[in-house]
Amino acid sequence: MAYSYSVSQSSMESLIVEVTTHSIEYSTDPSVRDSKANTAHSPVSADETPAIVFFPKSTQDVSVILKACNERRIAVTSFCSGTSFGGCLTSTRGGICISFERMKHVVALHEDDLDVVVQPGLGWVELNDQLEDKGVFFPVDPAPGASIGGMIAMSCSGTNAYRYGTMKEWVISLTAVLADGTVVKTHRRPRKSAAGYDLTHLVIGSEGTLALVTEATLKLAVLPQNLHVGLVTFDTFQQGVDIVVALQRAGHQLEALELADGPQVHAINHSKLAQIEMLEKPSLWLKFAGSSPQLVNDQIETVKGLCEEQKALTYEITSDKARIDILWGARKCIGHALVAMKKNPTDLFVHSDCAVPISNLAALVEGTQKLIQQANADNQVSSPDSKQPWFCTNVGHVGDGNVHSSIICPAADKPQVDEVLRKVARLALSLEGTVTGEHGVGLKQRDALIDEVGIEGINMMRRVKSALDPKGILNPDKVFRLEDDDPTSERAKL
Amino acid sequence: MAYSYSVSQSSMESLIVEVTTHSIEYSTDPSVRDSKANTAHSPVSADETPAIVFFPKSTQDVSVILKACNERRIAVTSFCSGTSFGGCLTSTRGGICISFERMKHVVALHEDDLDVVVQPGLGWVELNDQLEDKGVFFPVDPAPGASIGGMIAMSCSGTNAYRYGTMKEWVISLTAVLADGTVVKTHRRPRKSAAGYDLTHLVIGSEGTLALVTEATLKLAVLPQNLHVGLVTFDTFQQGVDIVVALQRAGHQLEALELADGPQVHAINHSKLAQIEMLEKPSLWLKFAGSSPQLVNDQIETVKGLCEEQKALTYEITSDKARIDILWGARKCIGHALVAMKKNPTDLFVHSDCAVPISNLAALVEGTQKLIQQANADNQVSSPDSKQPWFCTNVGHVGDGNVHSSIICPAADKPQVDEVLRKVARLALSLEGTVTGEHGVGLKQRDALIDEVGIEGINMMRRVKSALDPKGILNPDKVFRLEDDDPTSERAKL
Repeated sequence: MAYSYSVSQSSMESLIVEVTTHSIEYSTDPSVRDSKANTAHSPVSADETPAIVFFPKSTQDVSVILKACNERRIAVTSFCSGTSFGGCLTSTRGGICISFERMKHVVALHEDDLDVVVQPGLGWVELNDQLEDKGVFFPVDPAPGASIGGMIAMSCSGTNAYRYGTMKEWVISLTAVLADGTVVKTHRRPRKSAAGYDLTHLVIGSEGTLALVTEATLKLAVLPQNLHVGLVTFDTFQQGVDIVVALQRAGHQLEALELADGPQVHAINHSKLAQIEMLEKPSLWLKFAGSSPQLVNDQIETVKGLCEEQKALTYEITSDKARIDILWGARKCIGHALVAMKKNPTDLFVHSDCAVPISNLAALVEGTQKLIQQANADNQVSSPDSKQPWFCTNVGHVGDGNVHSSIICPAADKPQVDEVLRKVARLALSLEGTVTGEHGVGLKQRDALIDEVGIEGINMMRRVKSALDPKGILNPDKVFRLEDDDPTSERAKL
Repeated sequence: MAYSYSVSQSSMESLIVEVTTHSIEYSTDPSVRDSKANTAHSPVSADETPAIVFFPKSTQDVSVILKACNERRIAVTSFCSGTSFGGCLTSTRGGICISFERMKHVVALHEDDLDVVVQPGLGWVELNDQLEDKGVFFPVDPAPGASIGGMIAMSCSGTNAYRYGTMKEWVISLTAVLADGTVVKTHRRPRKSAAGYDLTHLVIGSEGTLALVTEATLKLAVLPQNLHVGLVTFDTFQQGVDIVVALQRAGHQLEALELADGPQVHAINHSKLAQIEMLEKPSLWLKFAGSSPQLVNDQIETVKGLCEEQKALTYEITSDKARIDILWGARKCIGHALVAMKKNPTDLFVHSDCAVPISNLAALVEGTQKLIQQANADNQVSSPDSKQPWFCTNVGHVGDGNVHSSIICPAADKPQVDEVLRKVARLALSLEGTVTGEHGVGLKQRDALIDEVGIEGINMMRRVKSALDPKGILNPDKVFRLEDDDPTSERAKL
């Protein structure tokens, strides 16, 4: 089936007429349109931005907009706060954007049930600010700017995933609007249910291609007590992995385990963003908490023993609030520290997002380093125009087996960098892993996804997509190619 | 679209010819056919049993059988061990059954990654027996006879769900066969992924209507340490609920919290299945464990304080292995104890499976008791033929807000009992709950599901079903009515 989308001036004008009869606001200002698609993480050109941005205030508003777009076959992207990677916001087929910035309220808080009902535009940081004095929090912690709607769309996670899981574990139910404007409530408010197909999880991670979320009921956790943070350095990355495996097998559930390699630590030092000067060696951050001080002490004793066994180079664990902020702050500044490694504003900053079973993590990191070093060396030889060597680092949510290998390089080296990241993805798959642990598929990982779930898996997703969005208006081209593309056409690239 | 299924002798014979060319075994023995559909929990008549039972040994075998059935439009049920409720195994449209009893192996155990790959016919008890000496276990604990395939199909849980979650939280990936024989691997082996639609969760809880699972990768947990079990009795059910809410808000994560009412305890005593004589009052079982003895002690101290506040009638917490078995054994015998309350072998034993947000649990139990008492009283007046009063009890996975209200009554009272259970379901929905916390929809809860997710939710499920199984061969009539039924035709019954 070939998809043809309305992009004409007249269809956009008739859309505006219909939608505004419902008092829904919109903008066609170029800077507003640009801001909904063109982000630092996923730069796009002017013709890849939406023609109109709508600002619904309710589920009903979203239903009106989608129904009108579906009738006209106008493509629809959606926007919460624009922190996603991989081009998920790109208006590949023209069309409009639904921005959730006027839907960012807490609808209801149920303290005794440890749940909260929120609108999609609300940021997780803002949500937690509102919850703090109640002693509870929402534990999924991606980039600080991220909003609940985008976090659901991308099935994201963060440093807390090791202890608390990802978005898949923290959403009780959704109100979602299908392409034709139908409003579905996937579930009610009990923490468990076996009532029919799991529509909640079908929408989580579907990247705005199956339905738009207008309300979410989220589980909450009690704020961690007896917080301690540790920072340990080793000679090798593998030593850090070994400690994590040993902690898991001993049944110790820490709050977070984050492992960086030496070059990553060098970037932190170089950026001067951290308040400490770190040893530029593989470094493991550990976060401990628990309802009992003794539990935390037991965990710390176990870690201490393991660090002695592994001959750790440096070792520090603290419960001092100011010192915790300094140690954890060094981990949290990594994104900005990498950007600061650019020698030139036009330099690229790209990264992988692979996750593997934890016993394969060291092999992934080692193999990735080899692949990147080789590509870097080849590039020096083959591209006399870009003699600047790449800067490469690894940092991992190691408890989850999820690692981000980053490359900073001249813009001219994009083809070589893309090629090596494809090799890294293939390596992760050969280690029984995934090409995207937490960032999602978007446009960038579509070909890798074919290798991950096979064309059978892609076609199963396509059948679901066609069933729920037969005109293909919701975020077309994301996750997998539309059926008028040859799904295998670009496989040679992987 | 009207569904018409092949049930003729000739189509069954040609199916056998085709399937047996692949050396796949089968049986048409009436007792074998009966055993795959007619169970104690869901009795069916002879014409609701499958015409043929196939015994595949591999994913490829299942693919061959489904492809052959799809070509002929022969309906397919599947069988693991037959412990489900609600009629999920019934051959409503004739057809065949795929029995997984020759696919019950552990395929691979990855101790360092805390995961295991298994076939669907393996029981969770047998799996845990094989894992015990490794110090790990699979924590989802429904009825002891249940197998992994059925547990995935029904999205089940059990007493451990409060601490560990349900099947939704413990499956990493699935190999599943679609109706047309296509084999899909939903995911690889990392513990987290954001790679496209969540096909794993789409299959979990779909009751054999979307795909048949032939292999599952499951997460494992480390065996609990420092185990203690407690049993506390109160004057009112609400007091037990209050303690559970207070424990949650204090951030204490117990292993299990099970609450029974006085009549339920009477059934335990009456059955003589437990090795203790219990006080016939609302009773709370608590299970404590943790990597640190101090953690468990802190939890016990908190419980002790709460029990004093609530003026508990009796209180016991023990770490003695023999005494733990006695106390917990009293909880685990409840199913058999209820059956033993039948005065007559033909008496019915029916129960609800509602779950609500925990703050509404006491209202659900109280309201349910009133509804059942009223119906019981009305029944005494209106049915002079069945003067035997109903015996009614409540037992709940209280940490999850999930309660089973049971009724034992003469078979002649079925219409009245069905009617009151429909009222109980409506009550749960009015309390923001679900009509099925862990048993699934099957045939019995289809109408209640319409009220739970709306006709919009049902139609979303139907669209997914039609996309993946366009001929509707997989377990037809389960979860929702086929499209040739009027989906609202029996709503008046609810």
